[in-house]
Amino acid sequence: MNISRREFVSASLALGASSFLNLQASPLGQSGLTIQQVMDLILKSVPGAPFQQTVDTIKTGDVGQRVTGIVTTMFATVDVIRKAISLKANFIIAHEPTFYNHTDSTDWIENDAVLKMKKELLNKNNIVVWRFHDYIHSMRPDSVLMGVLTSLGWEKYYDAGNPVMIKVPSITVREVVALAKAKLGIKSMRIVGDLSQSCERIAILPGAPGGRRQIGVQQQEKPDLMLCGEVAEWETSEYIRDAHALGLKRSLIILGHSFSEEPGMKWMAAWLQPQVQGVTVKHIPSSEPFTWV
Amino acid sequence: MNISRREFVSASLALGASSFLNLQASPLGQSGLTIQQVMDLILKSVPGAPFQQTVDTIKTGDVGQRVTGIVTTMFATVDVIRKAISLKANFIIAHEPTFYNHTDSTDWIENDAVLKMKKELLNKNNIVVWRFHDYIHSMRPDSVLMGVLTSLGWEKYYDAGNPVMIKVPSITVREVVALAKAKLGIKSMRIVGDLSQSCERIAILPGAPGGRRQIGVQQQEKPDLMLCGEVAEWETSEYIRDAHALGLKRSLIILGHSFSEEPGMKWMAAWLQPQVQGVTVKHIPSSEPFTWV
Repeated sequence: MNISRREFVSASLALGASSFLNLQASPLGQSGLTIQQVMDLILKSVPGAPFQQTVDTIKTGDVGQRVTGIVTTMFATVDVIRKAISLKANFIIAHEPTFYNHTDSTDWIENDAVLKMKKELLNKNNIVVWRFHDYIHSMRPDSVLMGVLTSLGWEKYYDAGNPVMIKVPSITVREVVALAKAKLGIKSMRIVGDLSQSCERIAILPGAPGGRRQIGVQQQEKPDLMLCGEVAEWETSEYIRDAHALGLKRSLIILGHSFSEEPGMKWMAAWLQPQVQGVTVKHIPSSEPFTWV
Repeated sequence: MNISRREFVSASLALGASSFLNLQASPLGQSGLTIQQVMDLILKSVPGAPFQQTVDTIKTGDVGQRVTGIVTTMFATVDVIRKAISLKANFIIAHEPTFYNHTDSTDWIENDAVLKMKKELLNKNNIVVWRFHDYIHSMRPDSVLMGVLTSLGWEKYYDAGNPVMIKVPSITVREVVALAKAKLGIKSMRIVGDLSQSCERIAILPGAPGGRRQIGVQQQEKPDLMLCGEVAEWETSEYIRDAHALGLKRSLIILGHSFSEEPGMKWMAAWLQPQVQGVTVKHIPSSEPFTWV
């Protein structure tokens, strides 16, 4: 599927306008759809899906059961699982891993107390967790990227020919920090470079695509500013520190991994809702785990 | 070599007591030693060195030249290189990569402006950069770990039988944060868990050993608190968030990669100095690149 920019913004607006306040009072699971059928329906919108190689597998639960409610989130944390249970939703679509590593392999921590308790919570409540990472990034436009741009009010700058870059009217790094705090709900973040530097050419790389990708974009695009989810501290942040010391106009804003991609999963709830009538789809932000001190 | 705890502390104290204030006025490089000879001398203290497989290679420069001064640091940043040049030191021993990736491979960014300018700065000034990562972690005790423990006043809790764990008189997470700020020079950090939680069994993992190692220690040791350098935000920080939500007594302090290992490279300068008489060895902290906003 090719989602147009207008359709993307419409879905985002629908999310804002609709109300999920009376979820617990609503009759859930009236559709008769199984979780597998919902998955099949979603995958129709992903070019080339299903993929042979992907981390987007079922992490737990029986997909043959009838769906009673759907939750989208960044991380299926214990808190998000408990909220899903209280909403009587049995299907969590999470962008990131459930068991603390990229492939969700558990053989190396099978005796771990936390893993056991989390699995018990999931199994006891018949929750299915499905990762939706490779698939959402394969949509065109990448719905995570588009979610971030739309949240920032920058969707009009999206360039399908070079999605990683946008060109904006001159703005300082400090102003972008304030915008990101206001629009993405971030309280604290880290930057490298200069808060007073002006920016017009901005690279947007949500999540953690790795230093090679981030620095590859630096080499090719020489952006005034890069917005990213997270860095390894021996890679992109050191590159930008050196670039800045060498007199180049380069800065980096590290939004935090969750905050940088959450708008994509929020968008997904609004996009999915009209396709599964009778089933409530709700986005529960998992937010960040950090206390900044 | 096996450095005793007492010797380790002595070296650390020596560093504090000695003065490098008149470096520029001092005649450097009076030893006649080449950089290669200094390296050979250092490697005599590392069990099993030289290693066949290691990232601790020469990153730039001619090791056959006479050493004029030695700088130890975490990152050979552009600023650290400039300070070394101003000290007329031609040998930088850095714990972390110089060219923004673990193996310091540069084929993938050979046309990059930042890489070119940094290499030009190094070459023009005949600076040798040597990474000292695998080697320092192979010393017994691991001098990075011991550096951190000594800085925190916790060297007396070091347990050679289980170096990753210490047992301390009851202390809260908040008090450990305050201690780390005071002793390691950290202004801001992130924690996961509960600032008011008490701790007795603390895991210390400087740097970025990866989620498998960090979570492996969680599984095995169930520490009240883990101090680490950095995390991937889909690994250990999510594990601790869940552990905490499940009612377990687990917290995590993320010191920052540089701050968590800098004491090891500071220790190294004091340890090396008496072995290279006539050559000044100075530690230049590269600190962190981040502005917290």
